[in-house]
Amino acid sequence: MADGESKDSETGRGPAARYRTGRVEAFSDGVLAIVITVLVLELEVPHSEDRPVWPVLLENWPSYLAYVVSFATIGAVWVTHTVITEYLDRVNSLFLRLNLLLLMVVSFLPYPTRLLAEYVGEPGERIVAVIYGGNLLLTSVLLSVLWRYAVHAGLVHPDFADTDVRTLTTHLTPGVASYLVMIGLGLFLPVFAVLGYLLIAIYIMVPVAAIWHRRRGLSAR
Amino acid sequence: MADGESKDSETGRGPAARYRTGRVEAFSDGVLAIVITVLVLELEVPHSEDRPVWPVLLENWPSYLAYVVSFATIGAVWVTHTVITEYLDRVNSLFLRLNLLLLMVVSFLPYPTRLLAEYVGEPGERIVAVIYGGNLLLTSVLLSVLWRYAVHAGLVHPDFADTDVRTLTTHLTPGVASYLVMIGLGLFLPVFAVLGYLLIAIYIMVPVAAIWHRRRGLSAR
Amino acid sequence: MADGESKDSETGRGPAARYRTGRVEAFSDGVLAIVITVLVLELEVPHSEDRPVWPVLLENWPSYLAYVVSFATIGAVWVTHTVITEYLDRVNSLFLRLNLLLLMVVSFLPYPTRLLAEYVGEPGERIVAVIYGGNLLLTSVLLSVLWRYAVHAGLVHPDFADTDVRTLTTHLTPGVASYLVMIGLGLFLPVFAVLGYLLIAIYIMVPVAAIWHRRRGLSAR
Amino acid sequence: MADGESKDSETGRGPAARYRTGRVEAFSDGVLAIVITVLVLELEVPHSEDRPVWPVLLENWPSYLAYVVSFATIGAVWVTHTVITEYLDRVNSLFLRLNLLLLMVVSFLPYPTRLLAEYVGEPGERIVAVIYGGNLLLTSVLLSVLWRYAVHAGLVHPDFADTDVRTLTTHLTPGVASYLVMIGLGLFLPVFAVLGYLLIAIYIMVPVAAIWHRRRGLSAR
Repeated sequence: MADGESKDSETGRGPAARYRTGRVEAFSDGVLAIVITVLVLELEVPHSEDRPVWPVLLENWPSYLAYVVSFATIGAVWVTHTVITEYLDRVNSLFLRLNLLLLMVVSFLPYPTRLLAEYVGEPGERIVAVIYGGNLLLTSVLLSVLWRYAVHAGLVHPDFADTDVRTLTTHLTPGVASYLVMIGLGLFLPVFAVLGYLLIAIYIMVPVAAIWHRRRGLSAR
Repeated sequence: MADGESKDSETGRGPAARYRTGRVEAFSDGVLAIVITVLVLELEVPHSEDRPVWPVLLENWPSYLAYVVSFATIGAVWVTHTVITEYLDRVNSLFLRLNLLLLMVVSFLPYPTRLLAEYVGEPGERIVAVIYGGNLLLTSVLLSVLWRYAVHAGLVHPDFADTDVRTLTTHLTPGVASYLVMIGLGLFLPVFAVLGYLLIAIYIMVPVAAIWHRRRGLSAR
Repeated sequence: MADGESKDSETGRGPAARYRTGRVEAFSDGVLAIVITVLVLELEVPHSEDRPVWPVLLENWPSYLAYVVSFATIGAVWVTHTVITEYLDRVNSLFLRLNLLLLMVVSFLPYPTRLLAEYVGEPGERIVAVIYGGNLLLTSVLLSVLWRYAVHAGLVHPDFADTDVRTLTTHLTPGVASYLVMIGLGLFLPVFAVLGYLLIAIYIMVPVAAIWHRRRGLSAR
Repeated sequence: MADGESKDSETGRGPAARYRTGRVEAFSDGVLAIVITVLVLELEVPHSEDRPVWPVLLENWPSYLAYVVSFATIGAVWVTHTVITEYLDRVNSLFLRLNLLLLMVVSFLPYPTRLLAEYVGEPGERIVAVIYGGNLLLTSVLLSVLWRYAVHAGLVHPDFADTDVRTLTTHLTPGVASYLVMIGLGLFLPVFAVLGYLLIAIYIMVPVAAIWHRRRGLSAR
């Protein structure tokens, strides 16, 4: 019976198989949930003994913008990661390490977020916008690599249509290209680049979430 | 078999369906658990080399009050969120994004909490009390929108009686109204408004938890 | 089928019932895991430009002691909480709120921990040791209340022997008494009281973990 | 039926048994996910009003190195811990406490990480590199002790071949030895020792992840 369960666990049809990719999902969910939540700890409370509080808070706008952009980006990573693991039949040793590398890069994001909040409107803002964009680009590249590796290594559940797999692959690519464009823009207009990063996050989230929805809609027929 | 499972997963009767809403639940639980726990990191340890520690700690009361109010509010959000997802048969793409928006607004709460702790008793306290209340109001509105959207989009499990669904809808509305009243009060008596926010959190938690209890009691018959 | 499942879910025998107490367990696990982990963020890195680093680090011993005591105490709370929920058949509305109250008190612990690290060896150390002990006492009382309420409200799984239930009740009581004694001691010898809190945490953890083990050993026969 | 389930839950073959080790896994996953994510909060944002931002950021390299080394080490601990619990049939009371001790030691790691970031290039760097290495060594020793205890106490699932068990035991030992060598190196060349810790983390992660993969590959046949 235990043997039968092990087999079942490997064909990916029983609940046990899910449990196994489940450990990776649970750890990734945990890390992403934490990193998205600790962003708020980076926001500094202004001290304005002798000035009204309202303008002091408004001057803090780069912090709020950086918070929203990073939150949206990590949210987009989470949605994409959820879709990727949903397609998986199982994980292997290299997938595990690629996933840890992705998590390391995403976990680093609060640091450039703080840099951005600190330097927007000051001399170093262009360099900081590029560093921030570089972190986002690396995240995007690693997500794409993770997915392509999973497809290449045959980790995707055989029941999924090739078109679905291609659709996800296609949707992950423009993200990488858009980040490159925005990093270039960041050298001249850093604040617009940051707004661009927000648009990319929303842009990624919409179709990927739609893939999730559509795939589930199809299988519900 | 895998196909049968997929079907089953969509009708929401098998364990697989739960697993699917499970990813959203797990991520939301994670974010809410983190945001409720990091509140304590915002509390500042007073340094009083030359004064007794007791009065210094007592002077810190706005921090403790803000901690309790924010904890109770996030607790109420968690209970409500748990009840909402308990009613769900499945989630869709827009629900996912609304949920991320809700989590972003709730995750922001530690920041106005710190503002409150910092400014109570100082000139900016009215503005800060309104900002804090605005964050709570937005949370309340988004919870209500999330639930109404879920009902509207047919995501609610068909086995639940319409009366139950209406009961929850009815209970989510007064929260929104109460926050509006309290924000108005905050312009004149900020500390009383904060105490009002505490009462609202307790008030929301009681009936919503009761719905949970009652519904489970009924289905046990 | 869905109806049958609901029924099953209420009798607490199917996997669904576990899932339901599972939401409370997952949230509590999350909060306890976070609060036990953020303790380290409170430790201050000493800056000693002109002195060797070794004595500076050694002077920091109250921080390390406070870290270990708080970690052990939260660990003991987690083990006890795990045993309590393991006995539960289901949860109800009041249990949920008592549990949130317990989590609020435990989540507050990093604050008196920091106070302790700051004030040991300084004039305010007695008051701070009493505040710290008061937080531990309240945790202990709430854990005991949570368990007694669960027994009283019939939330405990009927399959568990009354002796097991009584054993757990008996083990939760000395913790409360010991904290009272140590708080008294803290008024005179604060550092010894803190060491006493460590002993209590270990003392609670041992028999409670043993109950867990024994109960599982028995049912395995 | 409930009785049958309990029995099943103890033989470790049904989903319930997994659920039981599941509480320990979930708590450990949570703590490891948090500690790996809060590392970024320790990174300090440099303030350079009168200097370009680029060199200021580059001067910060010990922080980034410490971040990467600690991330890789905690990642290696997570992979190893996942493999260990995957082999387990059940947990007992002492395993639980050893696991909490391991988590306490791992959770402490952000503190020496910060020390390292602070003192590299300054007089205290050798002592700090040794403290950091000592934390890693203790982690490694406790992981090894946890696994050996689990084997000794018969907690390992009987279906696993003795060769698999021995393979894991063999792979855990060189970690301990390597840390001892690197701590010695740290007394003379602290930065090289830190790079050595990075290599050890990668070195541990590769074969342990491979065990996971191979074991699952075998059982899939």
